[in-house]
Amino acid sequence: MSSIAAKSVKSIVPLFDRVLIQRIKANQKTSSGIFLPEKSMEKLSEGTVIAVGQGAINKDGKLVVPGVKSGDRVVLPQYGGNNIKIGDDEYTLFRDHELMAIINE
Amino acid sequence: MSSIAAKSVKSIVPLFDRVLIQRIKANQKTSSGIFLPEKSMEKLSEGTVIAVGQGAINKDGKLVVPGVKSGDRVVLPQYGGNNIKIGDDEYTLFRDHELMAIINE
Amino acid sequence: MSSIAAKSVKSIVPLFDRVLIQRIKANQKTSSGIFLPEKSMEKLSEGTVIAVGQGAINKDGKLVVPGVKSGDRVVLPQYGGNNIKIGDDEYTLFRDHELMAIINE
Amino acid sequence: MSSIAAKSVKSIVPLFDRVLIQRIKANQKTSSGIFLPEKSMEKLSEGTVIAVGQGAINKDGKLVVPGVKSGDRVVLPQYGGNNIKIGDDEYTLFRDHELMAIINE
Amino acid sequence: MSSIAAKSVKSIVPLFDRVLIQRIKANQKTSSGIFLPEKSMEKLSEGTVIAVGQGAINKDGKLVVPGVKSGDRVVLPQYGGNNIKIGDDEYTLFRDHELMAIINE
Amino acid sequence: MSSIAAKSVKSIVPLFDRVLIQRIKANQKTSSGIFLPEKSMEKLSEGTVIAVGQGAINKDGKLVVPGVKSGDRVVLPQYGGNNIKIGDDEYTLFRDHELMAIINE
Amino acid sequence: MSSIAAKSVKSIVPLFDRVLIQRIKANQKTSSGIFLPEKSMEKLSEGTVIAVGQGAINKDGKLVVPGVKSGDRVVLPQYGGNNIKIGDDEYTLFRDHELMAIINE
Repeated sequence: MSSIAAKSVKSIVPLFDRVLIQRIKANQKTSSGIFLPEKSMEKLSEGTVIAVGQGAINKDGKLVVPGVKSGDRVVLPQYGGNNIKIGDDEYTLFRDHELMAIINE
Repeated sequence: MSSIAAKSVKSIVPLFDRVLIQRIKANQKTSSGIFLPEKSMEKLSEGTVIAVGQGAINKDGKLVVPGVKSGDRVVLPQYGGNNIKIGDDEYTLFRDHELMAIINE
Repeated sequence: MSSIAAKSVKSIVPLFDRVLIQRIKANQKTSSGIFLPEKSMEKLSEGTVIAVGQGAINKDGKLVVPGVKSGDRVVLPQYGGNNIKIGDDEYTLFRDHELMAIINE
Repeated sequence: MSSIAAKSVKSIVPLFDRVLIQRIKANQKTSSGIFLPEKSMEKLSEGTVIAVGQGAINKDGKLVVPGVKSGDRVVLPQYGGNNIKIGDDEYTLFRDHELMAIINE
Repeated sequence: MSSIAAKSVKSIVPLFDRVLIQRIKANQKTSSGIFLPEKSMEKLSEGTVIAVGQGAINKDGKLVVPGVKSGDRVVLPQYGGNNIKIGDDEYTLFRDHELMAIINE
Repeated sequence: MSSIAAKSVKSIVPLFDRVLIQRIKANQKTSSGIFLPEKSMEKLSEGTVIAVGQGAINKDGKLVVPGVKSGDRVVLPQYGGNNIKIGDDEYTLFRDHELMAIINE
Repeated sequence: MSSIAAKSVKSIVPLFDRVLIQRIKANQKTSSGIFLPEKSMEKLSEGTVIAVGQGAINKDGKLVVPGVKSGDRVVLPQYGGNNIKIGDDEYTLFRDHELMAIINE
């Protein structure tokens, strides 16, 4: 996990087609209120888009703009992404094309 | 298997050339009514298209739209795809080009 | 081997540059009438084209139409292809470019 | 080795940029007439072009026609190619770009 | 680690899409003033851009200029880059597309 | 080593971007006249261009003509190339882009 | 190490995007005059450009000219390049894009 000594995540501007995501954590409690131990908590594959790069130049010099925008809820792939830590918070930088779907709720 | 805390699968909008599929389960009973144990049930390679992405920008900046539409019955490859769980239901996100054929019945 | 619960193979429409093939089985009997055990029967690399996809968009957005048509007899590669079962019959989905040659007889 | 139940090799029409080749066998006898055992016969890397495909569509939709024609004597690579058997005769299907040189004699 | 017998880092002009970076070292002291042993110091994934190449010619002959400029603070990938030593100082040459994000603080 | 039953190397016409090379053998004798055993003779990476193909069609349908011509002395890579034998003489077929440099002496 | 029986390095004309480099050797003596044994001498990653190829045709038929010229001092990658020996001198042929930076001193 790479640490970044930035004061706030707002100062992070992803480059090219990268997207900064904060994973959504599964409920620490079952519906009947029992606290789940960290290990058993199912790893949710969802996250919120924090910031989006300007897009990458494709092989023909055309700018391909990312398909998501800040605030979108997205389905994440099981693998991939670069984790970074800003203070106590963890974020992940994905390439735009790694993101699976948008959750419109 | 990734879990998604969405209320309904209708809120899932696949990105790029991805297609959201629900696998069709083989008949739990033989034609003469005997219940098949889960293990012996042949894994059907069929599924129904639930939702389709807008398509991916190809190398030359052209949008290539997926070849299937919501409601199509499709032949699935034996491998590949990202499985996601919404409540108790399982779905799979495939890339458009991984799908094999449409079943027109 | 993937099973498809379709009523007839006619309902299978291959996607993109895929071609649906039925392999031609070697003669079960030698010319002098002796039945060959399944194992010794040489695996023929021939098949008949059942159905053909519309073609795939190449990297420059151009549609490349398959080089074979329904009813053609073709030479198959030794490996590759996705086998599917419809009822008791076995078929194989190849990519157009995997097919080796047409047999004009 | 794949067998093809075709009556004659003339009915084989290679697809795309494939070329049908019959390997030239080294002399079974030394110049002084002694029969060489099969094993010691050097594997000649020469062959005769039997039939040529129409060519393959390149990335930009342009048809690239093979650089050899039926009857040419060619230098073959040491590896590669798909061997097929028609009756007792063996042939090999190469991709056009695998062929090394033409022998103008 | 490659050594360069240059008098100053200012004389280093990266080629193509390469970017010369100096990593930012984590605080040697905790906020309460205790000196951290080298080993325990978390490896920061941040750096400052020292110099930037003119950009690389892409597949279509177009010059793609790097997305960062001298003085930018950037988030670095965990792996990659070529380390070079100029006197006692260590620098790293990354490809432009390896850089993750800019820190605007 | 592949053998070619051609009468003369002059009949070999390389295909596409291939170049037919004869390696130059290191001096069998030291300057003071002592015969070097075959094993100790340093493998020279030089050769003479015997024949050149017409060039290869690149991905955009453009013919890229080789950068060398018959009679050129060239620096060869340590690996690669297809060795062929014509009578007692050995030659090597390289791809044009494998050749390192021309020796203008 | 490949040997080239050329009289002078001036006769070597690199092909395509290759660049002929002579590595700069680290000082055999410490600043206080003590001779360093060969093994302990740090391998400098610097070199001088001796000769430059005309450039390579990229995938779209455009000539991409190397970014360095004869006499430039350059930062070399730790790996890669083809070493050649001309008389007692050693040189290395790199591809233009392998070179890291120019040292303007």
